Amino acid sequence: MASFSRLIRFLAKDGNIYYGDAILPSGVTDVGKAVQARILNGNPFGKHELTEQVADVDSLLSPLAREHLKTVRCLGLNYEQHAKETGTPIPQYPILFFRPITSLNGPFDTIPIPAVARQFDGVDYECELAVVIGKDAYQVPESKALEYVAGYAVGNDISHREWQLRRGGSQWGFGKGFDGWAPFGPGIVSSKLIPDPQKLKISTKVNGETVQESNTADMIFSVAKIIAFLSQGTTLLPGDLIFTGTPQGVGEVRNPPLWLKNGDTVEVSLEGVGSCINKVQDRE
Amino acid sequence: MASFSRLIRFLAKDGNIYYGDAILPSGVTDVGKAVQARILNGNPFGKHELTEQVADVDSLLSPLAREHLKTVRCLGLNYEQHAKETGTPIPQYPILFFRPITSLNGPFDTIPIPAVARQFDGVDYECELAVVIGKDAYQVPESKALEYVAGYAVGNDISHREWQLRRGGSQWGFGKGFDGWAPFGPGIVSSKLIPDPQKLKISTKVNGETVQESNTADMIFSVAKIIAFLSQGTTLLPGDLIFTGTPQGVGEVRNPPLWLKNGDTVEVSLEGVGSCINKVQDRE
Repeated sequence: MASFSRLIRFLAKDGNIYYGDAILPSGVTDVGKAVQARILNGNPFGKHELTEQVADVDSLLSPLAREHLKTVRCLGLNYEQHAKETGTPIPQYPILFFRPITSLNGPFDTIPIPAVARQFDGVDYECELAVVIGKDAYQVPESKALEYVAGYAVGNDISHREWQLRRGGSQWGFGKGFDGWAPFGPGIVSSKLIPDPQKLKISTKVNGETVQESNTADMIFSVAKIIAFLSQGTTLLPGDLIFTGTPQGVGEVRNPPLWLKNGDTVEVSLEGVGSCINKVQDRE
Repeated sequence: MASFSRLIRFLAKDGNIYYGDAILPSGVTDVGKAVQARILNGNPFGKHELTEQVADVDSLLSPLAREHLKTVRCLGLNYEQHAKETGTPIPQYPILFFRPITSLNGPFDTIPIPAVARQFDGVDYECELAVVIGKDAYQVPESKALEYVAGYAVGNDISHREWQLRRGGSQWGFGKGFDGWAPFGPGIVSSKLIPDPQKLKISTKVNGETVQESNTADMIFSVAKIIAFLSQGTTLLPGDLIFTGTPQGVGEVRNPPLWLKNGDTVEVSLEGVGSCINKVQDRE
């Protein structure tokens, strides 16, 4: 389905912005290390052409341009150890919330902390496996669900716990939806290269120190179960993103809590995909 | 800002689909009664041109094509009498949730009820004032917020109470996000024609019987307050939709509850804008 192996979007050394299929140095799987790419023209989840033309990468951008972003879904409490650490019962059904497209961000961009998020403590990290849908999915059975996946990325579901949990009137969207609060990438690795998404190491570091370390095997609802559930009554579209929840180790359950602050660096990593490394910076 | 007075999207008698500025019969304000329109070429919230060419309307479609839809925000519990009828305290801050773009629907289209929504009772109506953002809005003060509104429509925030409230793990998105569960329109009426959005009659009929009847004056957070709040830390984009909550009279608080079912007709109306009239139909 996907014509690419590792889709990136990048500023090239020629000054242009392209989509491309990343060319990695031998033995390297971190898409963030791409130095060259074959240029892809068009919308990677619509009409497009993968060319033979190669460009040199200057820096990686958000893997999908804003005009190609559609609906961004997120799951809450989808790792068993994370549900336990927050004292929450294992959910019976996937817990679904959404993000605005403006909250998506590039793999190495700054995460801006706006004034509203500085009113209270509570900026937290969440490493997540992000799924990119490749073709229209409606009422898809679990046994066929992975056929609808174009690829995978790693995402950081940055969350303001005070706005999310205590001042949002029970709904999580406002406290997670600020501009740039969902870095993802570094590229989108085709599901051809990741046939089983339920055995990938996933982790977070804050200022170089590991704070989350788990495996997608701990997910309560697998990627296939999530797609089967969400596609009931709802058509998932090519380019739709699904953030699939975070494992244990978030900042809010630590004693004292570990909140991200101006100047911090947060890194989320997923086996076979790579890392997003983002600096946190107060916004005017 | 908006070049149109009453934006519609329609199937024309010439067989083409156009955006247009509705031409209404004298004395009529219901945009659903448009029989002709001046054709608008391009993206009405991007590069476009309002032509002098007039086309005959065959039928009205969703006012925004899917490729021009961005983020769809909704507010919960934003009418005082509705908060009271559900026994919920008046919220301190706007309660924000989101809808997938696939849930948007045309003003006269069928609302499909998928199998997952027929597992339990609970399909409910919610008439709402829908706001369409006209230009990038970031950290907008309440006093200037209405300058960022392109126009208004009426929407129906169809909700499955069992999935929304009892099986969604506290998050409302899954039980409101099914395909076609947010009819809106019949067109988008420019804010030039509605300088004060807080004094509009709003109502719902089910099979011809009035079940909700209120006024946007009963909103807890006004349109200006909502935009000021939501634009804190988040950029609202041209074409973003905000459903601003529903007044009292929803089906779930009736005794016995009034659930929408196959064959019902539900009509939501907003003064100065018009009505969406949708038939409810079980989906295969």
